[in-house]
Amino acid sequence: MIDKIDDAARKTVSERMNEGRMGVLQDLMDYFDPELGKEIGNFIIGKMYSRSVIPWKTRQLCTIAALTVLYRPAQLKGHIIYALQAGATKEEIGEAIIQVAIYGGFPASLEALKVARETIDEAAGESPGT
Amino acid sequence: MIDKIDDAARKTVSERMNEGRMGVLQDLMDYFDPELGKEIGNFIIGKMYSRSVIPWKTRQLCTIAALTVLYRPAQLKGHIIYALQAGATKEEIGEAIIQVAIYGGFPASLEALKVARETIDEAAGESPGT
Amino acid sequence: MIDKIDDAARKTVSERMNEGRMGVLQDLMDYFDPELGKEIGNFIIGKMYSRSVIPWKTRQLCTIAALTVLYRPAQLKGHIIYALQAGATKEEIGEAIIQVAIYGGFPASLEALKVARETIDEAAGESPGT
Amino acid sequence: MIDKIDDAARKTVSERMNEGRMGVLQDLMDYFDPELGKEIGNFIIGKMYSRSVIPWKTRQLCTIAALTVLYRPAQLKGHIIYALQAGATKEEIGEAIIQVAIYGGFPASLEALKVARETIDEAAGESPGT
Amino acid sequence: MIDKIDDAARKTVSERMNEGRMGVLQDLMDYFDPELGKEIGNFIIGKMYSRSVIPWKTRQLCTIAALTVLYRPAQLKGHIIYALQAGATKEEIGEAIIQVAIYGGFPASLEALKVARETIDEAAGESPGT
Amino acid sequence: MIDKIDDAARKTVSERMNEGRMGVLQDLMDYFDPELGKEIGNFIIGKMYSRSVIPWKTRQLCTIAALTVLYRPAQLKGHIIYALQAGATKEEIGEAIIQVAIYGGFPASLEALKVARETIDEAAGESPGT
Repeated sequence: MIDKIDDAARKTVSERMNEGRMGVLQDLMDYFDPELGKEIGNFIIGKMYSRSVIPWKTRQLCTIAALTVLYRPAQLKGHIIYALQAGATKEEIGEAIIQVAIYGGFPASLEALKVARETIDEAAGESPGT
Repeated sequence: MIDKIDDAARKTVSERMNEGRMGVLQDLMDYFDPELGKEIGNFIIGKMYSRSVIPWKTRQLCTIAALTVLYRPAQLKGHIIYALQAGATKEEIGEAIIQVAIYGGFPASLEALKVARETIDEAAGESPGT
Repeated sequence: MIDKIDDAARKTVSERMNEGRMGVLQDLMDYFDPELGKEIGNFIIGKMYSRSVIPWKTRQLCTIAALTVLYRPAQLKGHIIYALQAGATKEEIGEAIIQVAIYGGFPASLEALKVARETIDEAAGESPGT
Repeated sequence: MIDKIDDAARKTVSERMNEGRMGVLQDLMDYFDPELGKEIGNFIIGKMYSRSVIPWKTRQLCTIAALTVLYRPAQLKGHIIYALQAGATKEEIGEAIIQVAIYGGFPASLEALKVARETIDEAAGESPGT
Repeated sequence: MIDKIDDAARKTVSERMNEGRMGVLQDLMDYFDPELGKEIGNFIIGKMYSRSVIPWKTRQLCTIAALTVLYRPAQLKGHIIYALQAGATKEEIGEAIIQVAIYGGFPASLEALKVARETIDEAAGESPGT
Repeated sequence: MIDKIDDAARKTVSERMNEGRMGVLQDLMDYFDPELGKEIGNFIIGKMYSRSVIPWKTRQLCTIAALTVLYRPAQLKGHIIYALQAGATKEEIGEAIIQVAIYGGFPASLEALKVARETIDEAAGESPGT
């Protein structure tokens, strides 16, 4: 990915993101349409993720809240990693997820908590589930 | 509502919330089952909304993000008012809403932006849409 | 509608349903494709709604539960009327709606409670909201 | 879990529920916030699941209907077990699931039918899929 | 809007779209963040809507199918107008909407059919509902 | 399945569909209620899938768009196969999926792209992921 996106996007990747994550979408776009993949990367990373109106940590907590109620466990992992890297604690991440159970239901939050625990344990160098 | 919920919930209402909002649910619960209404109020307000793991402003931005992607315009208004009361600016509220368009689609964010503009204008004592 | 659907469907309409409701879909199908409208009526009413594996009242409560979490207020009204006609009380209808807040979130149940109160009041010959 | 929740909730667990199920949420809450986990258990089990306005079997069929259209297969299993324990037959459970295909689409009902067949077969001491 | 977006986007607007529609989002973005509004316009119109891999008419029918099952009636109108301008008939638009009832449920398709009839009647210079 | 559905449905199966796919639903219905399974097959295949108002390829692209935003990966595979059989290219299928990211969010399209790549690679006799 890093060899295709423009400078603004590349700067955000190196400062804020671990390169591997957005690569899933980029890898798929390479298969279907590399040029469009580049434009999507430029827009999402270069324009949306580069903004500073709210702190990066708050932005990731809002994203976690949204992905939780949308029931998108596969995309949660990357944003939990970003939140941890931005200094969010286990408790803050759990709070964002359980808080939105009021709005999106407990099953959606429960699935997100599973992903969060697994990701946090992995990040801490522990085996999942301990 | 204020005459039924317990002390913990009442404290949160007076410190953090404008009384009128949760009243919509309480009013409906009075019609169907006042006792259960009281328990729901005690749980949502007294337990969930009284917590301090994340700041009240961040909590409201996460809630706005969740309600946006769930496409629940009718419930957004109250939480935008809470966010404003917690010191969130117009720009921060807009950012939380437009940020999650990446995850929940632009139509959902667009509807939320409409509610946000209307609510912010009302709060500023201006007529909506100006 | 009644002049187009087949005998099995017509029997269900006269025994279980107030004719006006499904008419909204039929009316729209008449505009786009009357023949397909007839087939849809035959299937939904003649096949699905004619079944007796669970009681008609339970079927309507399950339908109300589903429409609540799907956030489809416009379609709830008809099924609340069917539930009332099948002997469901105000309390039972409210219970089906508020019960699923655990799974689909409180905003969805709140919107459904609004429609339910309005429909129950109308059915009781009272003005809405009293 | 059973050692933390209050008496009302514990009574419902012993009378109506197999202890293992809600334990998934409790176990996750123990990781993130045990105190909040207790309050959630007290509310969902002690307040919502202890009610008798509609029969426990009807309540479970409504829950199955809601989880089906929400596409939450992971949470369906427990409620299918509760429904079976409350005397629901294979046919009644299948009916609640397939009935809501009209409202939530056939793919959601199809996924729920898969979980239901597997759970019913397991409960009957047969290997899944036979 | 037209004065802010770049040349690629402007070309697509003048060739394929009626200017007023995307203006709703642009107008809201002007209120919250005009610079981001421009970037979103450049991306959605200039990159996504300018593509030719599938015919514009097929693209609009796919969009109508997606907005139908997402239950986003407010955004459907513009895309039904684009479909009509691309030569889609009333029957083709109705078919895309009713076809997806199998996947997203009949209530979602019913609401979309209402919007479609109204929009088609307006486009034909007739009063809605005739 | 083929031994139960009526002639109209059987004709569509042999002309347009690979028999195995709809068999998942039929197999499940055989377990719960074979008679209703037959009626559902007659309706979906015999009535809905037999229509010609829009070309079969366009119909499949609309279905892919709808299943993408509904986040129903398990049902996508069959319709991607139908689309390929109807002459849709890899690029056209990818376009229908990525196009609706604007409306249903990028995570839903990303999951659908994964299924599409896997299915297209399998159809081409290659191992998935190459």
